[in-house]
Amino acid sequence: MASRYQSYTTIEQLPARVGDTVTLNGWVQDKTGKGKLTFIKLRDGSGMVQCVVFKPSVEERVADDAKSLTQESSVSITGTVRAEERAPGGVEIDVTDIKIWQIASEYPITPKEHGVEFLMEHRHLWLRSTRQHAIMRVRAAVIKAIRDFFDMHGFKLMDSPILTPNACEGTSTLFETEYFDLGKAYLTQSGQLYAEASAMALGRVYTFGPTFRAEKSKTRRHLTEFWMVEPEMAYFDLNDDMDLAEDFVEYIVQYCVQNCRKELETLGRDISKLEAVKRPFHRMSYTEAVEWLHANNVKLNKKQPDGTEIQIDFPWGEDFGAPQEEAIMTQFDKPCIIHRYPSEVKAFYMKRDPSDPRVVLAMDMLAPEGAGEIIGGSQREDDHDALQERIRHEGLSEEEFQWYLDLRKFGSVPHSGFGLGVERTVKWITGADHIREVIPFPRMIYRIVP
Amino acid sequence: MASRYQSYTTIEQLPARVGDTVTLNGWVQDKTGKGKLTFIKLRDGSGMVQCVVFKPSVEERVADDAKSLTQESSVSITGTVRAEERAPGGVEIDVTDIKIWQIASEYPITPKEHGVEFLMEHRHLWLRSTRQHAIMRVRAAVIKAIRDFFDMHGFKLMDSPILTPNACEGTSTLFETEYFDLGKAYLTQSGQLYAEASAMALGRVYTFGPTFRAEKSKTRRHLTEFWMVEPEMAYFDLNDDMDLAEDFVEYIVQYCVQNCRKELETLGRDISKLEAVKRPFHRMSYTEAVEWLHANNVKLNKKQPDGTEIQIDFPWGEDFGAPQEEAIMTQFDKPCIIHRYPSEVKAFYMKRDPSDPRVVLAMDMLAPEGAGEIIGGSQREDDHDALQERIRHEGLSEEEFQWYLDLRKFGSVPHSGFGLGVERTVKWITGADHIREVIPFPRMIYRIVP
Repeated sequence: MASRYQSYTTIEQLPARVGDTVTLNGWVQDKTGKGKLTFIKLRDGSGMVQCVVFKPSVEERVADDAKSLTQESSVSITGTVRAEERAPGGVEIDVTDIKIWQIASEYPITPKEHGVEFLMEHRHLWLRSTRQHAIMRVRAAVIKAIRDFFDMHGFKLMDSPILTPNACEGTSTLFETEYFDLGKAYLTQSGQLYAEASAMALGRVYTFGPTFRAEKSKTRRHLTEFWMVEPEMAYFDLNDDMDLAEDFVEYIVQYCVQNCRKELETLGRDISKLEAVKRPFHRMSYTEAVEWLHANNVKLNKKQPDGTEIQIDFPWGEDFGAPQEEAIMTQFDKPCIIHRYPSEVKAFYMKRDPSDPRVVLAMDMLAPEGAGEIIGGSQREDDHDALQERIRHEGLSEEEFQWYLDLRKFGSVPHSGFGLGVERTVKWITGADHIREVIPFPRMIYRIVP
Repeated sequence: MASRYQSYTTIEQLPARVGDTVTLNGWVQDKTGKGKLTFIKLRDGSGMVQCVVFKPSVEERVADDAKSLTQESSVSITGTVRAEERAPGGVEIDVTDIKIWQIASEYPITPKEHGVEFLMEHRHLWLRSTRQHAIMRVRAAVIKAIRDFFDMHGFKLMDSPILTPNACEGTSTLFETEYFDLGKAYLTQSGQLYAEASAMALGRVYTFGPTFRAEKSKTRRHLTEFWMVEPEMAYFDLNDDMDLAEDFVEYIVQYCVQNCRKELETLGRDISKLEAVKRPFHRMSYTEAVEWLHANNVKLNKKQPDGTEIQIDFPWGEDFGAPQEEAIMTQFDKPCIIHRYPSEVKAFYMKRDPSDPRVVLAMDMLAPEGAGEIIGGSQREDDHDALQERIRHEGLSEEEFQWYLDLRKFGSVPHSGFGLGVERTVKWITGADHIREVIPFPRMIYRIVP
C-alpha cells in the first residue's frame, strides 16, 4: 500500500508528466501580468516552474486569486503540464485551480540588493532565494558524494565524540563547557584521534561531524562551527593516503558536475574548470615548493622589531600562508598536494619521514582558483616511544593520551588519514564569495543568530 | 590508473578469490596449535578468517613467526585462498608467508569476562571485540539506510547548527559555553526549528547530527550526546508524517536484515522478529491508549504527600512513562504509533487538533521488544497568532523566536516532521543490553573518557 505522500507531485518530476493534470504545493517567487494572462513563478524546493493563468479559461475566483498573490505567498496550484521548450525546465503549467494557504505581505527580501548584515539577520528567509537555494542543493550533493565514495570503498562510518576531555591539538582555542562532576569538557576540533582507534577495530573508517574552533579569525574562509569528514585507514602509508585523497576529490567534483549542472549554471559557475579536476593531480614536496617560491621571486613579508616590514626569501621551515599557497597555485588548473612539511609546523601525531627526519609525512591538498587548502592529512606516528617523546615535547598530558598511546602498544600498524573541510569544498565548487553562504546557519565570531 | 590501495585484499572479498594468492593485513584474534599446524584467526575490520600454517610447507622462519603471535599482534599474512565449507566465511588461508608488524604483549581485554567499568575505560580497545565490532557495523548500516531512504525520496540534507542562542524546548537542561562577546551559547537539543526554516526553502529536508542533553538520567536508554535524524516536510500533515515514519522505519530494519545478517547472527539476534517489522504498523490515539490501560488494569504509581505510593487509574492528561509504554507494547510484535497527546505534555510548537483542542497533532513511535520510544514527531503549528500565544504561555522569549514566527508570516504552510534517535534504533535492532554499547565513544553523566 503506497502512502499518500508518495503521490504528491514535485516540480522536478514535471518533465515526465507532460499532458497530466497535477497539483503542486509551493511558494510564489514572482508574479507578472499581461492582459488576460497572469504568470506565476512557483518554487517548491525541488525546482521552479512558470504557471500560466488565462482568465477566459478559469473561474473568476481563480483569476482573482492569481492576481492577489504576492512574493512568498503559499499556494497549491492545479493545472496541466505543457511542454515548453523555451522554459528553463522544459515545461509550464496551464492553471485550472488555485488554493491559497497564506498571502505573504511585505516579504523583507525583495529582488533588489540587500546588505550582507541584513541578509544574515534573515538567513531563515534568505535560504529561499535562487542563489542560496542552489548552493544548499550543491552542499547536499557534496555530502552525498562524500558518503557514497566511502561506502563504495569498504569504509564504515564511526562517529567520533563531540564532547572531549582534552584538545586534539593542544595549542588552539577551544569552546568549553561544564560536564557534571567531571570538570570541563571541550567541543572537538577533530575526530581524528578517535578515528585512529576505530580504524584499528574496523580497518577503514570515516568520521563525519561538526567540528569547532574558537579562533578569532574574521576571514572569508573561517567559521567557528564547520563540518569535517575524516577517513582513517589501517595499513595505508602516505602514498596510499594521497592516492585516496585524489580519488576522493575527483569523485566529489565530478559527482557535482553530473548531478548539479542546473545549480552550477544558476550560480554562474564555469563548469569546464570543474570538469578539468581529474586525476592525476599535481604533487610537490614542501622543499620543492620553497624552491619554486625562490625561483619565482615570491617573497615573505616579515615584521621587523621596529614595526616595519621587509621582504625576505622564504625561509625553509616556515609554514606557508595564504599568499604562498595562492602563488604556488597560480600555475595549476587542478588541485596540488604538497607533502613532507617541516615537523615543527605540523601536529605531534604525524610520522617522521624515515629518509629525512626534519620533515613529517604530512600532506595538504590545495584547490585551484584561489580556493586554498581543502585537505590536511598525514601518515600517523605508529611507534610508541617516538609518539610518547612527541607528546612530552609538546607539553601534552601523557596520562590523558594514554588511550591513544595504547594504539601503539597493542598491534600498532602503519596508518594514515586526512580531513576534508566540507564548507571549503562547497565554497570552491559553487564559487561562493564567502564561506558564510555555504552552510545553512553560519556561526562566526560575531554571529550566532538565527 | 588505479591507485595501489585499490588492489589491497580485505577478508570480506575472499569468497570471490578462491584459488588466488593474497596478502591480508590485520590483527590476530586468536591462535591455537596442533602438532605441525598453527591456526591463526585473523581479523581486519571487514571480517575474520582462519589462516593455517603447516610447518612442513613453509620456511622455518614463517613457522616460528606464527608460533610467536599473541592476541592483537599486527601481521600481514600471505597465502592461498581455499574453499572450506565448515569455515564461517566459507574460506580459509593456506599460509605461505608472514610479516610481523608488532607483537602485542599483555593485551588487556582477554576472552575472559571483564567488568563494564573496565571495558568502558578501554573502549578504544573494546571496539575490536567481535560483539562490539558487529554492533558498530550495524550502526553504520542503520545510518546508511537513513540517508539512502531520504535521498531516494527527494529530501535534501540541511545541517542545523549545533551552537544555538537559545533552547529549542525551554525547560530541559542544556550544556552552555561562552561565545565570544555574544554571551552564552547552548549545545542543540534538536535541529527541528531550523529544519522548519529549511523546509520552507527546500520542501523536504532532513537534518542529521549530534544532539545534547545535560540531563542527570542514569538509565539504560540515556546518553548526554547522541545522534538524531530529523526530517521536516512542507505540506505534510500528521497522516503523511505517520506514513513516512512507518515507511522509514520499515526500510531501516529491512535494510539491516538484508545487509547485516552475519552481524545480527553474531549478536544472537532473533532475526525473525525484525523480519516481521513490515507496514502497516499499529496505531492508536493517546485516548485509546488510556482506555486500553484502564481495560487492562494497568495502574499508575502515584506518590502521596506523606511519601507513600498508591496505585490509581491512569488519569487522562498525564504523560506516559516507560511502565505504560511497555504495558501497551506487550500486545504488539511490530511498532505502534500513539498520536494526539494532551497539549500540556507536549512541546509548544505542535499544532492543536482542530477537532479536539485538548490534544495536539503529535505522534510517538514505540518499538516492540521493550525498546521503547524511537520516534517523536508532530504536525507543527502553522498559525502565527496561535504559535505566538503558545510561546507567551510557555514564558519563552518572543524576541528570540522572532525568526521562527517569521516562518508563519511569509507563506506559512502545513508542515510536519519527526526525530528518530539513532542509538535507540541501533539498540533495538542489535538487541544490545545498554545504549552505551551502540555508539563508538559513549558520553554519560559519569563518563567522558576515552
